[in-house]
Amino acid sequence: MGAVQFPQHVIARKRDGGELDREEIDAFVRGASDGSWADYQLSALLMAIFLRGMSPRETAALTDAMMRSGIVADLSSIRAPKADKHSTGGVGDKVSLHLAPMVAACGVVVPMVSGRGLGHTGGTVDKLEAIPGFRTGLSFAEYRAQLGRIGLSLIRQTDEFAPADRKLYALRDVTATVECIPLICASILSKKLAEGIDALVLDVKYGRGAFMKEKARARELAVALTSVAGAMGKPARAVMTAMDEPLGHAVGNALEVAESIECLRGSGARDLMEVTFALGEQMLVLTGTSRDAGAARILLERSLSSGAALAKFRELLEAQGGDPRVVDEPGRLPQAGLRRPLPSPRSGFVARVDAMGVALAALRLGAGRAKAADSIDPAVGIGNLVKSGDRVESGEALCLIHASGERAMEDAADLMRGAIELGDAPPARPALIGEIIG
Amino acid sequence: MGAVQFPQHVIARKRDGGELDREEIDAFVRGASDGSWADYQLSALLMAIFLRGMSPRETAALTDAMMRSGIVADLSSIRAPKADKHSTGGVGDKVSLHLAPMVAACGVVVPMVSGRGLGHTGGTVDKLEAIPGFRTGLSFAEYRAQLGRIGLSLIRQTDEFAPADRKLYALRDVTATVECIPLICASILSKKLAEGIDALVLDVKYGRGAFMKEKARARELAVALTSVAGAMGKPARAVMTAMDEPLGHAVGNALEVAESIECLRGSGARDLMEVTFALGEQMLVLTGTSRDAGAARILLERSLSSGAALAKFRELLEAQGGDPRVVDEPGRLPQAGLRRPLPSPRSGFVARVDAMGVALAALRLGAGRAKAADSIDPAVGIGNLVKSGDRVESGEALCLIHASGERAMEDAADLMRGAIELGDAPPARPALIGEIIG
Repeated sequence: MGAVQFPQHVIARKRDGGELDREEIDAFVRGASDGSWADYQLSALLMAIFLRGMSPRETAALTDAMMRSGIVADLSSIRAPKADKHSTGGVGDKVSLHLAPMVAACGVVVPMVSGRGLGHTGGTVDKLEAIPGFRTGLSFAEYRAQLGRIGLSLIRQTDEFAPADRKLYALRDVTATVECIPLICASILSKKLAEGIDALVLDVKYGRGAFMKEKARARELAVALTSVAGAMGKPARAVMTAMDEPLGHAVGNALEVAESIECLRGSGARDLMEVTFALGEQMLVLTGTSRDAGAARILLERSLSSGAALAKFRELLEAQGGDPRVVDEPGRLPQAGLRRPLPSPRSGFVARVDAMGVALAALRLGAGRAKAADSIDPAVGIGNLVKSGDRVESGEALCLIHASGERAMEDAADLMRGAIELGDAPPARPALIGEIIG
Repeated sequence: MGAVQFPQHVIARKRDGGELDREEIDAFVRGASDGSWADYQLSALLMAIFLRGMSPRETAALTDAMMRSGIVADLSSIRAPKADKHSTGGVGDKVSLHLAPMVAACGVVVPMVSGRGLGHTGGTVDKLEAIPGFRTGLSFAEYRAQLGRIGLSLIRQTDEFAPADRKLYALRDVTATVECIPLICASILSKKLAEGIDALVLDVKYGRGAFMKEKARARELAVALTSVAGAMGKPARAVMTAMDEPLGHAVGNALEVAESIECLRGSGARDLMEVTFALGEQMLVLTGTSRDAGAARILLERSLSSGAALAKFRELLEAQGGDPRVVDEPGRLPQAGLRRPLPSPRSGFVARVDAMGVALAALRLGAGRAKAADSIDPAVGIGNLVKSGDRVESGEALCLIHASGERAMEDAADLMRGAIELGDAPPARPALIGEIIG
């Protein structure tokens, strides 16, 4: 039990640069969960942590305490190895939608709990909910039963997992304490490790369209995430990936579901599949399913060519109430009222597609949220987007804009014109996959 | 009017070490006053200020905004110069009670607004309220009228003056953000400068019994206080004084009133009068009443020898409803049920009287507050306290303990035995009055 920890004393210790012990961190997280700390005390400590930092030991203790604030799933009755993937978020990042069935088709159970989009574009849950009938709100019992049955669940974050994170995240959002590596680390891992997984692969993105703009800072986060997960007994590996240009050809919820189905059919965009394979390889290697990345790649490619991954996706839709006909008839996904190509003003090469510019266009169309309470239009977005290096002729379409009204269409077209840069020669192609950490 | 300042943006600017501008600081103080900032946002910014600091310009802007959150008294209809004194607080510090009438008797108007005790012993208001009938809660109109009539008001802090300070102080108290010089500075000056004074003298204490234990840190506060007041157009001077031993011979509310009356009769303790004169001199010099400290000292001594200061004190009691007979009959002040001398265990010299030890004894007796909501017993405390350097014989009284019950009496006697150190030779006498700043 230990001594009572007065909030002021814990705050003062961190304020003065001290290392908080397990009891102090437990008091803080319990305070966030049961209201025994006032919000103004939680936020004072969050700011002190922001400015003073946390040691790896403190970060691990914080992660563990936050994880234990809710259910920690016990999936030991499921014999197969269990792994999940988390991305720090990027534009057009629909990787989870097809990666999860691919990996599940290779024999790894994927218990995936995802968030809604907090940034400019939808999150995995928003994309799944573009599928008519798909339920992301399974109970914990349904989630576990489905994992045992088909080896795959894609559900939304609930208050059952790491409720302290929801409380603390909401406070961080309004007190300028979001961009703090130990806090980000504890927020991500407390939820992911509560899922009951054996291993975790992280897609840590850097660049103009990423949460972390700077590679060095993203690397810091990757190191923190993998070492804290390791300290908690869960092998984790982070793949650093560039996020300057949207992944694939589509940004927008239903449009991205359709693109993921294309990936499962074996015709995914090069950049999108490169990231997908890099992450899938690590999931198979970390769980001991494959002995190395090369062997894992063969398994993953086979899951596509055999149709097993697509079949697994169909199973997922059936299990969670989604209309499985969308797999063969993508026209059954929500369709926007207006569709209009954006013509290229000149001939040449695509020099750059700015992820932030495309994200803002998608946000303007209604594909994302400016505030947490905003609702999303699943049908709208940017499709058929060119990639940097593509050769285009004057008047040829740079993308197809899916809008619900004329005003949004025009604004989005303006934003897209600003986001796509054309040149006379193909640009240098920087590496998409960076270092692998952990 | 300016742009809307989102709390998160203001917090983030300070978090990153930026200098807040006038509009941002106004938004913060308005947010504290009208509730447009949530408490958790106020406390996040308070912690960021604690750790990042504030420039003199920011501190002045904060002080000014806090001052303007309530009434700023306009005393221009009163022709005489107006000055006040503020002490950072010490044990046995009853200086205000006799200094205010002394200075008023020299022709300077003293509009004094004081707080209740927040530390171990009572504040000036608690001491005044030990006088039967004395009302510290005058309305602003009564306060001003009395200043015009008798040149002296001693009232308690109300929500009319600097209400933002009350809000912010309450938050600082529970979020470990009290000991921060810019915040202390703004808290003290916003209230004092709202009184309508022309000049301010500060008693900035350092040592074992002071809020600031270290002289260097106290000096930092003195420099901040005088320069911010100067920047706001109010001449201010700080007298640095040692607070290792209680001032005078009494600690406890009614006991200190009686001691102040002794001072007004010209028989105050040496150390107590030394501090009183040092502060009074600066009040007379700063207001231009005397040309230098020597001339001021003569005026102040004359206010005592002529009986003018004592008469002014009697006028004060009459004006604020206090029983003026206590001046001649101190037995009319509240009396404790038990009074018992603490005998000296040996003969020798008093080597040290520890202010904190005496404060804890007084607190145990009920003379101060451990929590803001605690009530005070005006009668109890420590009287007839020896001073370091005094020669004592074995069995002679080291002090007289005034208690309301046997348990408290015994605990206080134990604490007092630990607080008074005896030796074989008179100790070195360190300087009581240090540097004068401003």
